[in-house]
Amino acid sequence: MDFNKYYEDRQKLVNTFLEKRLEKKGISRVDEAMAYSLLAGGKRIRPIILMATADALGVSGYNFLPVACGLEMIHTYSLIHDDLPCMDDDEYRRGRLTNHKVFGEALALLAGDALLTLAFEVMLEQKNVPAEVLVETVREVAMCAGNFGMVGGQVIDLDSEGRQISEEELRKLHAGKTGALFIAAVRSGARLSGAASDELLALTKFADLLGLAFQITDDILDVEGDAAQMGKAAHSDEKKHKSTYVTLYTLEGAKALAQKTVDEALGCLEMFGENAEALREITKMMCGRKS
Amino acid sequence: MDFNKYYEDRQKLVNTFLEKRLEKKGISRVDEAMAYSLLAGGKRIRPIILMATADALGVSGYNFLPVACGLEMIHTYSLIHDDLPCMDDDEYRRGRLTNHKVFGEALALLAGDALLTLAFEVMLEQKNVPAEVLVETVREVAMCAGNFGMVGGQVIDLDSEGRQISEEELRKLHAGKTGALFIAAVRSGARLSGAASDELLALTKFADLLGLAFQITDDILDVEGDAAQMGKAAHSDEKKHKSTYVTLYTLEGAKALAQKTVDEALGCLEMFGENAEALREITKMMCGRKS
Repeated sequence: MDFNKYYEDRQKLVNTFLEKRLEKKGISRVDEAMAYSLLAGGKRIRPIILMATADALGVSGYNFLPVACGLEMIHTYSLIHDDLPCMDDDEYRRGRLTNHKVFGEALALLAGDALLTLAFEVMLEQKNVPAEVLVETVREVAMCAGNFGMVGGQVIDLDSEGRQISEEELRKLHAGKTGALFIAAVRSGARLSGAASDELLALTKFADLLGLAFQITDDILDVEGDAAQMGKAAHSDEKKHKSTYVTLYTLEGAKALAQKTVDEALGCLEMFGENAEALREITKMMCGRKS
Repeated sequence: MDFNKYYEDRQKLVNTFLEKRLEKKGISRVDEAMAYSLLAGGKRIRPIILMATADALGVSGYNFLPVACGLEMIHTYSLIHDDLPCMDDDEYRRGRLTNHKVFGEALALLAGDALLTLAFEVMLEQKNVPAEVLVETVREVAMCAGNFGMVGGQVIDLDSEGRQISEEELRKLHAGKTGALFIAAVRSGARLSGAASDELLALTKFADLLGLAFQITDDILDVEGDAAQMGKAAHSDEKKHKSTYVTLYTLEGAKALAQKTVDEALGCLEMFGENAEALREITKMMCGRKS
């Protein structure tokens, strides 16, 4: 398959959907702050994973843009709130000023709130699936995004600052903070496509391992990136008190764990044969494999 | 009817439901911060309006606790975020320290995010209604809570600080900031009860007028409360640059407008006869009428 074309086509679809949806205006200028962050580009990896999961089940992922784009809104709101002064206090994101640097803290806070809320509105606009399935799908997305998943992971992250944590805690932190939305993406795509229970199980296992492999890779790239760019030593210093898979396992150990985890993830996709090609390519792309 | 008993019974049910639901733990101590604000008492007016609307249609409001309590979670998250230093910077709420004063800004921010997310999870747990009806109901709640409704109104409020605004702007501000959730409560109760379209229309008109009357009453009580308590002159000073129905219409004018609006709201309930008794009592309670 021409994976680059596959990915770019879906990226464009997601961008177009988001732009169109934001044309429906609210009653205030929070719309502007929402659009600033939501339409800032980005890989759109979560919606594309959702669509690729549907494709793996032989159902066109194009059908599920509303739920897919809801996930992107949830991801974006979490970035806006993460960047706020009381959280990471970041000035730049993707090479642009962060939301609160442009609109002020109050409006950035509310833009995040509005995006999270709009995510649910948009997901519930999904057509072409039985309403029972949609209810169950969106309910599960909420579970993955809240205190049981993403927000819970963010709080564990807050509480782990400045101290070494155990592998178990680190796994729980990332399973929540980043893993839960990947699980939401894969399980939503599967549910909306009418996956059988064994398929749902295999795909859930896949999503969990994908999230883990992605995080280990991220920790590795952080170290290697810092080593390559001596000018960014401050960045490395900032992180020296933070537990990562590299601090837990050494660089070589983390690389071996990443490879093993990616292999296991890919193993979960075997039952889907050729249809899972896009999911395989996404996995390799996210975990820094050339082939 | 014994309205006090009616109200207290439902208040207890809401409190019990919220306590029980929070027993299902997440993965971090954000749960504690969520419970601190959600279980702090409060009038539970929005869930009770939802239940009373069902009662007006001859369907027991007891059936709809999940959606009703979702509204209370949305209301509570908005209070936590409103109290943050970048917003109103309040130290006390209902006689207790605000969430961020107890848990810190970062955790309070995330507790609000988690409550908003949990609201959707809980609403989608609603049983005993067709899934199509639930999808449409929760989608509409999202619309009322986001940039088109509550959050939009909060942003208009931010932008109106320190200047007089027109009646039209003031109406839009409050219709969003407080009115939209009342509309969500009434329309959710009506939809879940299978209201006919003329009933839904009358109840929507009622909810809109109720929100307006409530706001005018609030503005009146603010002035009269300040006048009664000379010690709180600072409070009054703080607000002197803020547009209210009293600054727009004078105290007497605002009282006349409140009375007219309450009468119109009650007029919308005529078609529901005795079944709407609880809604009528709630209206009088919220708008400071003795009978």
